[in-house]
Amino acid sequence: MFLVVWAQVLFLDGKDRLQQRLREHELDTECLVNLTPRQFVMPGLVDCHIHSPQLAITALGTDKGLLDWLTTYTYPAEARFADHDFAHQAHHKTVRRTLRGGTTLASYYSTIHTDTTLLLCQAADELGQRALVGKVNMDLIAPEFYRETTQQSVAETERFLDEVLSYKSGLVTPVITPRFAPSCTLPLMTKLGEIAKERNIPIQTHLSETVEEIETVMKLHPGHQSYTEVYDAAGLLGPKTILGHCIHLSDKEIDTLKSRDCGLVHCACSNNTLRSGVMDIRRLMDRGLKLGLGTDMAGGYTTSMLASIRHSVDVSNMCAIHSHNKQRQNGEHQQASNHTTDGSPPYRPLTMAEAFRLATLDGSSVLGQNCGNFEPGREFDGLLIDPEVKDSPLDLFDFDTPDDVVQKFLYTGDDRNISKVYVQGREVVSRTE
Amino acid sequence: MFLVVWAQVLFLDGKDRLQQRLREHELDTECLVNLTPRQFVMPGLVDCHIHSPQLAITALGTDKGLLDWLTTYTYPAEARFADHDFAHQAHHKTVRRTLRGGTTLASYYSTIHTDTTLLLCQAADELGQRALVGKVNMDLIAPEFYRETTQQSVAETERFLDEVLSYKSGLVTPVITPRFAPSCTLPLMTKLGEIAKERNIPIQTHLSETVEEIETVMKLHPGHQSYTEVYDAAGLLGPKTILGHCIHLSDKEIDTLKSRDCGLVHCACSNNTLRSGVMDIRRLMDRGLKLGLGTDMAGGYTTSMLASIRHSVDVSNMCAIHSHNKQRQNGEHQQASNHTTDGSPPYRPLTMAEAFRLATLDGSSVLGQNCGNFEPGREFDGLLIDPEVKDSPLDLFDFDTPDDVVQKFLYTGDDRNISKVYVQGREVVSRTE
Ligand SMILES: [Zn+2]
Ligand SMILES: [Zn+2]
Repeated sequence: MFLVVWAQVLFLDGKDRLQQRLREHELDTECLVNLTPRQFVMPGLVDCHIHSPQLAITALGTDKGLLDWLTTYTYPAEARFADHDFAHQAHHKTVRRTLRGGTTLASYYSTIHTDTTLLLCQAADELGQRALVGKVNMDLIAPEFYRETTQQSVAETERFLDEVLSYKSGLVTPVITPRFAPSCTLPLMTKLGEIAKERNIPIQTHLSETVEEIETVMKLHPGHQSYTEVYDAAGLLGPKTILGHCIHLSDKEIDTLKSRDCGLVHCACSNNTLRSGVMDIRRLMDRGLKLGLGTDMAGGYTTSMLASIRHSVDVSNMCAIHSHNKQRQNGEHQQASNHTTDGSPPYRPLTMAEAFRLATLDGSSVLGQNCGNFEPGREFDGLLIDPEVKDSPLDLFDFDTPDDVVQKFLYTGDDRNISKVYVQGREVVSRTE
Repeated sequence: MFLVVWAQVLFLDGKDRLQQRLREHELDTECLVNLTPRQFVMPGLVDCHIHSPQLAITALGTDKGLLDWLTTYTYPAEARFADHDFAHQAHHKTVRRTLRGGTTLASYYSTIHTDTTLLLCQAADELGQRALVGKVNMDLIAPEFYRETTQQSVAETERFLDEVLSYKSGLVTPVITPRFAPSCTLPLMTKLGEIAKERNIPIQTHLSETVEEIETVMKLHPGHQSYTEVYDAAGLLGPKTILGHCIHLSDKEIDTLKSRDCGLVHCACSNNTLRSGVMDIRRLMDRGLKLGLGTDMAGGYTTSMLASIRHSVDVSNMCAIHSHNKQRQNGEHQQASNHTTDGSPPYRPLTMAEAFRLATLDGSSVLGQNCGNFEPGREFDGLLIDPEVKDSPLDLFDFDTPDDVVQKFLYTGDDRNISKVYVQGREVVSRTE
């Protein structure tokens, strides 16, 4: 691991100072990357929720709702990962794709198969991506061809942790991954919570994605007040817990998640495509929760975190439109009855700057990693962006300011503009190769 | 203009039949394009609403609402098009970009400048794009540096029509383009309606984009019941009228638009980004209106019609979520008061197939052009899609069906997959060049 010193040499006398800095850090000039005037460096993108084995079904089955889609598309696709060769090829394909798209850190759901989940760890390690990887646990609602007994699920989780931890990868962290409450018994979830606590391992799962799912959870796990309370009863909620979706939460559930210091992941594309609901991220930001963004590929139809950023802005704009409509209706109603108009402050949709932070620094904090920006002391996960690369999707003009260029990249750029990807200071993608 | 015969040669004896067909059509084998197993041909994309001069401000000013955005970003950007050299370069840039993205037919708003709007016509003609091009009319609300008198506006429109029609381009059609009711006096709109009728010219304008805009129109043009009625009073509504946005329409306005046989353009990305409102396209489809899709670049932040397709599906999914929420609330409310649950049929979100049709055949019908699919008798505007091009954004697997491949392209493909673009049978983009 080494540090890269970035410097844009604008003046001749800057070169001398630069040489001095290089000597101070005992670096030679080969480490230097000179930027053209419009190139810039930004933190790597962090995908807090993605299913590696679902790459084959991206963009398919979008006419289904969540539970139907899982049965028809997802479980059959995941069951294929019993096959070693297929899994090796497919997991490498996912990591190569996400890295190329600028995802320097991802939290992966694999499948229930321990051995081929290790292949996903291997893919991240080989290709140079920082990753959390979880072997999925499922001992309740699941098809015959794709389920475990409680005992198997616990034993295989222990084996998976042993294997990954013994490998001592600087890039890969294991994460305990009960799929979601409909597919896990309470004894399994409780045992997994204990293991996580004992061994200080992060946990990831899904929470409150659809209304139908919540109803299923309430039936399968009676005696609890809410979906969140089921996980809390199993001891799954803590500062290292990563919860995907979190759409239909009551205020009380939000209080619990806040007091347990959990990380929540907004998966805008997925929520919209499966019509799961609209997550009001502003409400959760205002309550001070730890938040990140996730593609939830293949619930979301793309692996691109740039697309995730845009989707999160889109969904928040939609929330703003509906909030304004409601305020207007209330105002008109009150005017009609001779009251004052609705005086509540206008909804503040997510800005692009906020979405960018969620997709970088905030995400790395949800995943407990020391990256996400370029503060001294953080590891360098970064992207070299070239807005003027050949075949660039950006339309730039001479009078664009640097801010304009960044904003155009965030709205209309793609992987072609990501010339180099660095993880822990190491160059892992170079498109000029 | 010539026809291209497409044939996928799968069997040896197919080759003989193919030669026979070529002889029948008096074509030689040079016209043949052999497809690889996963390549396919689809109709060209139709952008029914796009502002060529706004390319420089794509993705900028997204924190503004419509009227503020127009004043701060749009009008200054458009005023630059008084400059011949800048306009020449910028309009060519737009046409090159949209053609490369697969837009074979577009309906352009230019600026108020007649001479440089002719440069946009020239760009479309030279680069081979089928286009409707309009010189914009503005004699009411507009900044000092970017407005016309009523007389100028009419005279310049006549001159513009004369120039374009005398050129006899097979690709470019002039379109009369009063910007929108806030920026046009009723006498101007009435005169433009007369010209359109006399000379049988299409008309395009904006309708009912934001609530604030509607209020402005009602103040500026008193004595009318609705925004739609203002245009109807000016004689602007007919079967060759193309209306952008159409978000906040009353049932009565929809009746009027239907009886006048107008074409309506859904600009999903723009509506969302400027937070103008949510256009319920299902409602208008159910009423049998003529509909197409538009990027409304730069209200929309991208020129990509593939993105437009996705945005229209996204917005419709959002409508479905809100409709289901409402039905559920009604149902619960009725259950609580011992009534039956809400029995209304579930909302049908736009399918990808419907969005595809809107972006091709339906759009060409809104713009009055004889293309949009491959029926005999239509002109051939088509795209050769290569899902496996080098650096493709698609993740394909051996077991993908042809339908899977098309769906993956529509959700996750981009201009890299568009190997060739044909307009009126002529190859106008070739990425293998
Ligand atoms: Zn998920
Ligand atoms: Zn427009």
